[in-house]
Amino acid sequence: MQEELKKYPVTIKLPVQWGEMDAAAHVNNLVYMRWTESARIIYFEKMGMDTSFTSGEAGPILGWQDCKYIFPMTFPDTAIIGVRMIEINDRFLIMESAVFSEKHQRIAAISQQKIVPYSYKELKRIEMPESWKEGIQNIEKR
Amino acid sequence: MQEELKKYPVTIKLPVQWGEMDAAAHVNNLVYMRWTESARIIYFEKMGMDTSFTSGEAGPILGWQDCKYIFPMTFPDTAIIGVRMIEINDRFLIMESAVFSEKHQRIAAISQQKIVPYSYKELKRIEMPESWKEGIQNIEKR
Amino acid sequence: MQEELKKYPVTIKLPVQWGEMDAAAHVNNLVYMRWTESARIIYFEKMGMDTSFTSGEAGPILGWQDCKYIFPMTFPDTAIIGVRMIEINDRFLIMESAVFSEKHQRIAAISQQKIVPYSYKELKRIEMPESWKEGIQNIEKR
Amino acid sequence: MQEELKKYPVTIKLPVQWGEMDAAAHVNNLVYMRWTESARIIYFEKMGMDTSFTSGEAGPILGWQDCKYIFPMTFPDTAIIGVRMIEINDRFLIMESAVFSEKHQRIAAISQQKIVPYSYKELKRIEMPESWKEGIQNIEKR
Repeated sequence: MQEELKKYPVTIKLPVQWGEMDAAAHVNNLVYMRWTESARIIYFEKMGMDTSFTSGEAGPILGWQDCKYIFPMTFPDTAIIGVRMIEINDRFLIMESAVFSEKHQRIAAISQQKIVPYSYKELKRIEMPESWKEGIQNIEKR
Repeated sequence: MQEELKKYPVTIKLPVQWGEMDAAAHVNNLVYMRWTESARIIYFEKMGMDTSFTSGEAGPILGWQDCKYIFPMTFPDTAIIGVRMIEINDRFLIMESAVFSEKHQRIAAISQQKIVPYSYKELKRIEMPESWKEGIQNIEKR
Repeated sequence: MQEELKKYPVTIKLPVQWGEMDAAAHVNNLVYMRWTESARIIYFEKMGMDTSFTSGEAGPILGWQDCKYIFPMTFPDTAIIGVRMIEINDRFLIMESAVFSEKHQRIAAISQQKIVPYSYKELKRIEMPESWKEGIQNIEKR
Repeated sequence: MQEELKKYPVTIKLPVQWGEMDAAAHVNNLVYMRWTESARIIYFEKMGMDTSFTSGEAGPILGWQDCKYIFPMTFPDTAIIGVRMIEINDRFLIMESAVFSEKHQRIAAISQQKIVPYSYKELKRIEMPESWKEGIQNIEKR
C-alpha cells in the first residue's frame, strides 16, 4: 500500500464512522464518494482554485464519476484517500482517487471523476483557466 | 421525459430535500447515488431477491458504478428514478438508472451499476441464481 | 394516528430509503432530523419566509433541537411528518415535529426545534419580523 | 477550550468535510449528531459494551437526544468531540457530548443523549448490566 500511495500527490485520512455503515454492516457505497469529494476539494485548494461555488470565477463542477468497489470496509478503520490528475485538456480534467484501508493495508476502492470549469454566477461551462493548469503542474511535478 | 421513462420497468419518486443540497446550492452528487440505490432495492425486491444482507442466500453486492451528471437539480423538485436491467450473465448484472427532474421534465443524471451475487454469510461471491434470472425476466418482459 | 395528525397544519410524506438504515438495521437517528428539517422548510416557505440563506432578510437559524425516539422505523415504510408552531416570541420560535410510521400507523419520534431570525449577510441574529408572525398565524389559524 | 476539554474522558477528532455543509454554507445540523454518535460508539467500546447490534447481549439504543448549536462551523476546520457520562441509573444512561472547533478554539455545540440497554435479539429493553456500570467507572474515574 505504501508503494501505491506514492502515486498520489495529495492524500488525506478520515476515520470510518460507525454510522457510515448500512444495514449490510459495510461502509455504504455513498461514503466512498464523500471521501473522494473531500480529497478532491483539498486538491482544488492546493491548485489555488476558487472553491466558493458562488463567484463568476471558474469553479469545479462534476460531470461524471465512477467507483470500483474492491473490498468492503467496516468500522473501525481509517480511510486513506489519494488523488492525482490523470488528464488535462481544454474542456475538462480527469482525476483519480484511490481509497485505502489503513487496517487492512490495501486498496478498497478506486474512482475517477471528470471535472469541468464552470461559472457558478452565470451557471454555464467556461474555458479551462491557465491558472488551473499551472496549479496542477505544481502539485503533480514534485 | 414520459417517452424516456417508458424504457424503465421499475420507477420510484422521491422529493428533493432541502438538506440534500450542498454549499454549491445544488443537490450533492452523493444524493443521486442514494436515489439509484433506493430504486435498485425496489427492483431487487420485485425480483424476489433476498435483501436481508445477512443470510447465506445470494444477496446483491455492488462491484462498480458510475454516474453522468447532466444538469444540477435543486430544491424544491421531485426526482423520478427509473431502473432497468441491461446485461445479465453468469457472474454479474448491469443495471441502468436514470434520474429525471419532475419540475424540469428532463433527465438530470444517468448511472450504471454492476451487481454481483454474494453470500453475506460466507463473505464471498457466489453463482448467479436461476431465480434471479427468472425474476428479471418477469420484470423486463412486460 | 389520523387523529394525532390533525394537530399539525403542515405535513409531508417521505419514503424510507434502504440506505437510511444503519448497521443496527434501523433507520439511523440522524434521518429523523433530516425529515423534520425537510418538513420545517416547507412550513417556512408557507410562511413566506426568505429561505435563500444568503440575503440580508431574516432567515432561519437552528439554535437547539431535541428528538425523542419512540420506536425504531425500518425499510420499507413511509414517514409522515407533521409540523406545528408551539411558541412565538420576540426572539425565537419553537416548532414541534412528529414523525409517524405509515406502515405501523403510529408515532415513531417527536422533536422540537428552536428557530432564531438571522441575517445570513451580516451573520448575526436579528429582530423577529412581523411578516413571520403573520405567516404563522395564517398557517395555524385554519 | 483546552480547559473545557479536560472534563471529557473520551475525545475524538474528525476533519470537517466540504460536503457536510448545506446550502446555507454551514455544517448541516445533522452532522453534529453524526459526530456525537461517532464519539459515543468509541466510549461504548472503551466500556467493553457489545456493539454488534445483533446479539442478545445488552446493546445501546438511543431514547432521546438534544443539541444546542452555539456557533456555525464551516469547512475547513476540525471538530474535536468530547464525551462524558453525566447520569447512570438502573434504566438508562445520560451522556454529554461537546463539539469544539479546532480552528476557532471554542465550543460549537453541546448535546445530551439518553441511552437505554436493549436486546437487539429480542427487540426489547433490558436491565442495566453491571458490566456497563463498571466500564463507565473505569473511564470516568481517571
